[in-house]
Amino acid sequence: SRSINLAVIPGDGIGQEVVSQGLKVLSAVLPQDVKLETREYDLGARRWHRTGETLPEVELEQLKGHDAILLGAIGDPSVPSGVLERGLLLKLRFAFDHYVNLRPSKLFPHTASPLAGRPDIDFVVVREGTEGPYTGNGGSLRTGTPAEVATEVSVNTAYGVERVVRDAYERAKARPRKKLTLVHKNNVLVHAGHMWKKIFDKVGEEYPEVTTDYLHVDAATIFFVTQPERFDVIVTDNLFGDILTDLAAAVTGGIGLAASGNINPTGAFPSMFEPVHGSAPDIAGQGKADPTATVLSVALLLRHLGHDSEAIRIEEAVAADLAERAGAPARTTEEIGDALAVRVAS
Amino acid sequence: SRSINLAVIPGDGIGQEVVSQGLKVLSAVLPQDVKLETREYDLGARRWHRTGETLPEVELEQLKGHDAILLGAIGDPSVPSGVLERGLLLKLRFAFDHYVNLRPSKLFPHTASPLAGRPDIDFVVVREGTEGPYTGNGGSLRTGTPAEVATEVSVNTAYGVERVVRDAYERAKARPRKKLTLVHKNNVLVHAGHMWKKIFDKVGEEYPEVTTDYLHVDAATIFFVTQPERFDVIVTDNLFGDILTDLAAAVTGGIGLAASGNINPTGAFPSMFEPVHGSAPDIAGQGKADPTATVLSVALLLRHLGHDSEAIRIEEAVAADLAERAGAPARTTEEIGDALAVRVAS
Ligand SMILES: CC(C)[C@H](C(=O)O)[C@@H](O)C(=O)O
Ligand SMILES: CC(C)[C@H](C(=O)O)[C@@H](O)C(=O)O
Repeated sequence: SRSINLAVIPGDGIGQEVVSQGLKVLSAVLPQDVKLETREYDLGARRWHRTGETLPEVELEQLKGHDAILLGAIGDPSVPSGVLERGLLLKLRFAFDHYVNLRPSKLFPHTASPLAGRPDIDFVVVREGTEGPYTGNGGSLRTGTPAEVATEVSVNTAYGVERVVRDAYERAKARPRKKLTLVHKNNVLVHAGHMWKKIFDKVGEEYPEVTTDYLHVDAATIFFVTQPERFDVIVTDNLFGDILTDLAAAVTGGIGLAASGNINPTGAFPSMFEPVHGSAPDIAGQGKADPTATVLSVALLLRHLGHDSEAIRIEEAVAADLAERAGAPARTTEEIGDALAVRVAS
Repeated sequence: SRSINLAVIPGDGIGQEVVSQGLKVLSAVLPQDVKLETREYDLGARRWHRTGETLPEVELEQLKGHDAILLGAIGDPSVPSGVLERGLLLKLRFAFDHYVNLRPSKLFPHTASPLAGRPDIDFVVVREGTEGPYTGNGGSLRTGTPAEVATEVSVNTAYGVERVVRDAYERAKARPRKKLTLVHKNNVLVHAGHMWKKIFDKVGEEYPEVTTDYLHVDAATIFFVTQPERFDVIVTDNLFGDILTDLAAAVTGGIGLAASGNINPTGAFPSMFEPVHGSAPDIAGQGKADPTATVLSVALLLRHLGHDSEAIRIEEAVAADLAERAGAPARTTEEIGDALAVRVAS
């Protein structure tokens, strides 16, 4: 489409800084005839302190009207742990049925990484985004007493697993290596694990061209470090995906480069794009944050909206910028954003 | 005590091979006047195929009579996933109330590791062993249909959390750096996570000399790769501990060196020692398995039984052996066991 109506949620900590650079690069990459409209939503820690609100219904409704959402980061130590995460970030993922949480990992040449010199790392994690241990099910009995019992219930439905597994097969099929790995822990979490495995095998019958593999989550973490080039597409549950994608970032270019999309493939609700990193309050406001993860999230956003060539331009600009970065003095958030904006425009 | 009455469960795959070497080193290190009695238990995949049994009551009773248990590895692809894990390995951990699952990680000099050249990695994970997502709670409704719902319930009690947290504080207090990190995911798993954090803080008041820290599990995986020297003692739940300790092995000397103890600190039941690695059916019977993790588990066993100087002799022998290994041709399982036995005896 020739216009993009974007919702922007800068959020907390470094969120504002990185989102500014993301928008700068987005404006620079778009052709003249694509109209970009943005509307900023004031959500996050400051809003909560001011009004006690995390995500009011009226704003949830308004957000539905956008083509996509760009989010910076959510969370601040001044807010009790969980309030903003559950009340805002996860609320959006659940309300907008973002069942595909897409997290690509790629080791760019010249990147500082404990595994540098292994250029073949290029995989994508398809993390389920609307079920598993993230549903908020569970509770606590006799809270605060020595007899307290606290439970967390991981809820998994065939409906929810099937759709994300199918999405992952489609992505694997479209890639040169056509390989899909299921990660779970079905030797311990037998109820959910066996259901995931059964559905994974069943859907796989429709994709004879895709090679499949199963790994327990603990074994997968080992391979992320010792043999990451073995992975192509990974599909996994909400919690394992959370853990594995931070690890993936650590073994590739670091959390400063990890992009993500919270995608509703049906288009029923807007999809949301955000860096994998958090709000990093310790470095907020100092121009130290790397906006690259946000810029790469903008590339995912563009691809989702069908602007493939602009997405590729951003990814190439990032690769070129990282190559120049090696050995050079550290730049500020804004300097990196400026450099990327210049590259994508030219 | 001047005698050790040991139960031995070699189990599956490489279990038999590595346990033989562990016992060889154990015999070699013990002074003449310590009588070692061992009894082998035929449990695991072969037994299950033969009789359908995983761990009969009578053997569970017999196992109670030993001072400790040495276990090789459990699990085989010919047995449905979960049957032996839940019916044997986890059954033992739960029946014998092994609430402290102790997993030290240390980067020995000269070890091949993606993080080689960073000699200060020396931490221990205290993984809760009797609760959390490992309880087997949960189930599946309308199994095998498109309307299936499968749940896994993580059960956490103040009783269970308090005792393992206290154990971890004691261990931290006894170490030079006196630092304890709680790893959980309390911004999402708010019920269990907040209880863990509250108990962690409360028990901490009794240990003013211990410095504390909290990390979300996803952030912890990043630090395991980028900054593992920041950790001293880590306390965490059963599932996070499972994942983190495999990762810890990967960033130090590999899974071939990772030892563990399933400990009941009260002495009410025998504690059980095992390598962190699995049964590795792909290399079983070929003399390729590294028995070092089992030998280091024997050192943990000896320390648990009060034979500290023998435990230290084993650890020193392993360090010396690893130093010699660098650049040398690969040795067989037995050759490594022989070399370690010679070293500890001399
Ligand atoms: C902030 C937190 C709720 C979130 C998650 O656990 O999903 C984050 O870690 C992520 O990976 O996007
Ligand atoms: C085999 C499996 C049940 C076990 C676990 O998950 O605890 C293993 O991975 C371990 O870490 O000892």
